[in-house]
Amino acid sequence: MKKGKKILPTKQSDRKTSIITAATSIFAKKGYERTTLKDIAAEVGISKATLYYYYGSKHILFFDIVHKNITDAIEGLNQIVNSSRPTKEKIDLSFRQHFKFYIADYPGPSVMLHEKTNVFPQDLEIRVKNKFREYITLWDNVLKEGVDSGIIRSDLDIKVMRWAAIGMCNWVYKWADLNGRLEFNQISEIFSKLYTEGILAK
Amino acid sequence: MKKGKKILPTKQSDRKTSIITAATSIFAKKGYERTTLKDIAAEVGISKATLYYYYGSKHILFFDIVHKNITDAIEGLNQIVNSSRPTKEKIDLSFRQHFKFYIADYPGPSVMLHEKTNVFPQDLEIRVKNKFREYITLWDNVLKEGVDSGIIRSDLDIKVMRWAAIGMCNWVYKWADLNGRLEFNQISEIFSKLYTEGILAK
Repeated sequence: MKKGKKILPTKQSDRKTSIITAATSIFAKKGYERTTLKDIAAEVGISKATLYYYYGSKHILFFDIVHKNITDAIEGLNQIVNSSRPTKEKIDLSFRQHFKFYIADYPGPSVMLHEKTNVFPQDLEIRVKNKFREYITLWDNVLKEGVDSGIIRSDLDIKVMRWAAIGMCNWVYKWADLNGRLEFNQISEIFSKLYTEGILAK
Repeated sequence: MKKGKKILPTKQSDRKTSIITAATSIFAKKGYERTTLKDIAAEVGISKATLYYYYGSKHILFFDIVHKNITDAIEGLNQIVNSSRPTKEKIDLSFRQHFKFYIADYPGPSVMLHEKTNVFPQDLEIRVKNKFREYITLWDNVLKEGVDSGIIRSDLDIKVMRWAAIGMCNWVYKWADLNGRLEFNQISEIFSKLYTEGILAK
């Protein structure tokens, strides 16, 4: 075998995983629009014809990336929100979970968060939107539980509180560096404290 | 004159403004990558040759949009941060300012926040990055002033606090609707309270 030649997995599912991994990496670097199926085939080390056998179009590939990532995010958050932990601990863990997921699937989450999903045909766009709604609803559930039990203040709109948490977490893809000054668990701890207790000195 | 025919401004600066406005609107709808100079010329109602006279390339046009928007954002924030108001009021006004700016220049800010600036040649990318840094530093200054005077807690990293504020504000372009359930000043008020006081009941 030539030096540097890629070892290709032979099983169909492994091949699909290699394609997804390669596509995610190129989408993250070049952006969805500028990436071609040719780029992806070259990165995997297969012909364009072989790639077509697995993925007939770029948007289906993109859909699989988004779907996998949002499903993973929901699964992680679901376990926290539907546990019997105290509300404040659930919120703290939800922040941590976001960063844990971000690192584990990197750069998939950044591709999912950045790219616009209006490239999908309507049926796929609806499926993605429903998934995003599922994720958002989990945040609403834990906030509502907190308001109902008197742990969380009742004068702030739940949906706006939810977007504040999701917004600060999601924007992380724009600035945070996996090898930056702070560990991701330090960032999530600060976010969690700031969100629950506020930045004013007591 | 035919019904629906566009009235074209004749002055050079007006023409440039029309081009910027049209480009911003198409970038917001189709995304930077998918937009062509032909699309923009058609939207303004001029020939491609005329457009070329003003803008020889798409990225210069995009640079002008980003530069205008970040400069406006800095100007607004600068006035607040460098005023003699109390720190807490400055933070509250900084949140309000973000939404005020967002509405006034819409959809320019959403184009600036969404699109990746790695399409610029190095000199322009540096200019844009310096401008973004200027904006961020204003947030750092007000937070540092608060920590120094004991108004803001000193146990949270200033840069992470800054990103929490900017993150929740910037993510707004992904979800908030100019004609939505809540007014933008209501959203900024909730963000400001949540950020300064936290979501826990006292």
